[in-house]
Amino acid sequence: MAEVEAGGDEGRCVRLNAKRAQELLADVDTVLFDCDGVLWRGETAVSGAPETLTALRARGKRLGFITNNSSKTREAYAEKLRRLGFGGPTGPGAGSEVFGTAYCTALYLRQRLTGLPTPKAYVLGSVALATELEAVGVSCVGVGPEPLQGDGPSAWLDEPLEPDVRAVVVGFDPHFSYMKLTKAVRYLQQPGCLLVGTNMDNRLPLENGRFIAGTGCLVRAVEMAAQRQADVIGKPSRFIFDCVSQEYGINPERTIMGKSH
Amino acid sequence: MAEVEAGGDEGRCVRLNAKRAQELLADVDTVLFDCDGVLWRGETAVSGAPETLTALRARGKRLGFITNNSSKTREAYAEKLRRLGFGGPTGPGAGSEVFGTAYCTALYLRQRLTGLPTPKAYVLGSVALATELEAVGVSCVGVGPEPLQGDGPSAWLDEPLEPDVRAVVVGFDPHFSYMKLTKAVRYLQQPGCLLVGTNMDNRLPLENGRFIAGTGCLVRAVEMAAQRQADVIGKPSRFIFDCVSQEYGINPERTIMGKSH
Repeated sequence: MAEVEAGGDEGRCVRLNAKRAQELLADVDTVLFDCDGVLWRGETAVSGAPETLTALRARGKRLGFITNNSSKTREAYAEKLRRLGFGGPTGPGAGSEVFGTAYCTALYLRQRLTGLPTPKAYVLGSVALATELEAVGVSCVGVGPEPLQGDGPSAWLDEPLEPDVRAVVVGFDPHFSYMKLTKAVRYLQQPGCLLVGTNMDNRLPLENGRFIAGTGCLVRAVEMAAQRQADVIGKPSRFIFDCVSQEYGINPERTIMGKSH
Repeated sequence: MAEVEAGGDEGRCVRLNAKRAQELLADVDTVLFDCDGVLWRGETAVSGAPETLTALRARGKRLGFITNNSSKTREAYAEKLRRLGFGGPTGPGAGSEVFGTAYCTALYLRQRLTGLPTPKAYVLGSVALATELEAVGVSCVGVGPEPLQGDGPSAWLDEPLEPDVRAVVVGFDPHFSYMKLTKAVRYLQQPGCLLVGTNMDNRLPLENGRFIAGTGCLVRAVEMAAQRQADVIGKPSRFIFDCVSQEYGINPERTIMGKSH
């Protein structure tokens, strides 16, 4: 899969002119895009990006949207793409162009927890992440605020754990708390419990050069406490690309990926 | 400073017998101790530890207690030592045997922020940490719960920052939250703002082999988001030992340190 970073040329970074762009596209069926920081920042489309995508659609290229952000379902991303002027399918299956880490984490868990009668995950993450997991049959606990219970560290450990939790999933969790960190580590001490991180991004870019801490910061905290490394779903890990490959039947020779710096 | 781990002998780890212990102690003025996991686990004294310390005190040895835990002031530690049967001074100056990271972080900030008219720190940590900082003239903001404000990442960045914050201090903070992580990173983008971690322990040992996540997990999260390395106060960093050295006028040849594995 060729990676184009404002035009890649034997390792140098060059800007595509119209002619080179035409040549490049002639050999390509599928164009994959990063989202945050590439198509948009926060709720603002990057200048020129909607027009570029509209032109690609008009030329019959298949588009795919790859995002490490786990805070939205495929459908919610499809809605955002349309809202910001990037077009795309509507109705049932509207999310089929979108490969977000919420969806791909669900595919990963379906693969890894296969055969278990009642696969269950402790989710440090959004409702959207849980929604995608539930859609593949993984039931979710832990979403939402989880305040400290009891009057100190010892009491925090007395909180009951849910039975049959087979994975701890760490995504973008605005309600991250010490209590959740404590519970995550307790689940991870149980034999065979997976630790999955949606992505390791250190920052999430927003409008005007602003950013907030990324999910990777939370994954690192859990990894350090549990003394284990997470299985990571998002870029640059391979798994998210495997998801696209599998669903799109990608020919790497005829695919390009527009990505951020 | 010789380190004794159930008796150190040219790199091998041996248990001290009575004769060897006598010989060792004859050459020593000062004995320093780790606290969590060595003298106590949670609220339970390690078996035999109070008697050992009482014997050392009876032989005129000077004791020092070194702890990476930042959740108590020197005075509160002195009180805990007495409560668990380890003896020690009472009244004003009762905390003089204790070198905790709350106190030593205060010494570090006093050193680094010297000359500033109104040194101020954003503290992810306990009231105790703030108390030690305030005692050396560093005013503190941020202690306590800090829930999410506004309806999304962009809004979180609109929260006003305190002026004149010269350091972000990350200690044991049961109220750690995304909002605090976000604010910490915003302060750290300001020129000259220090990042200080009380310690990098991945776990805090409690009773019965139980543990919770340690402060290091929170420091790592802030480090990763800010893309900066923290100045670390606690063991194995040198600074905490420098504090002891300076206040005790330590002769390393005549000092031993009992530490955990």
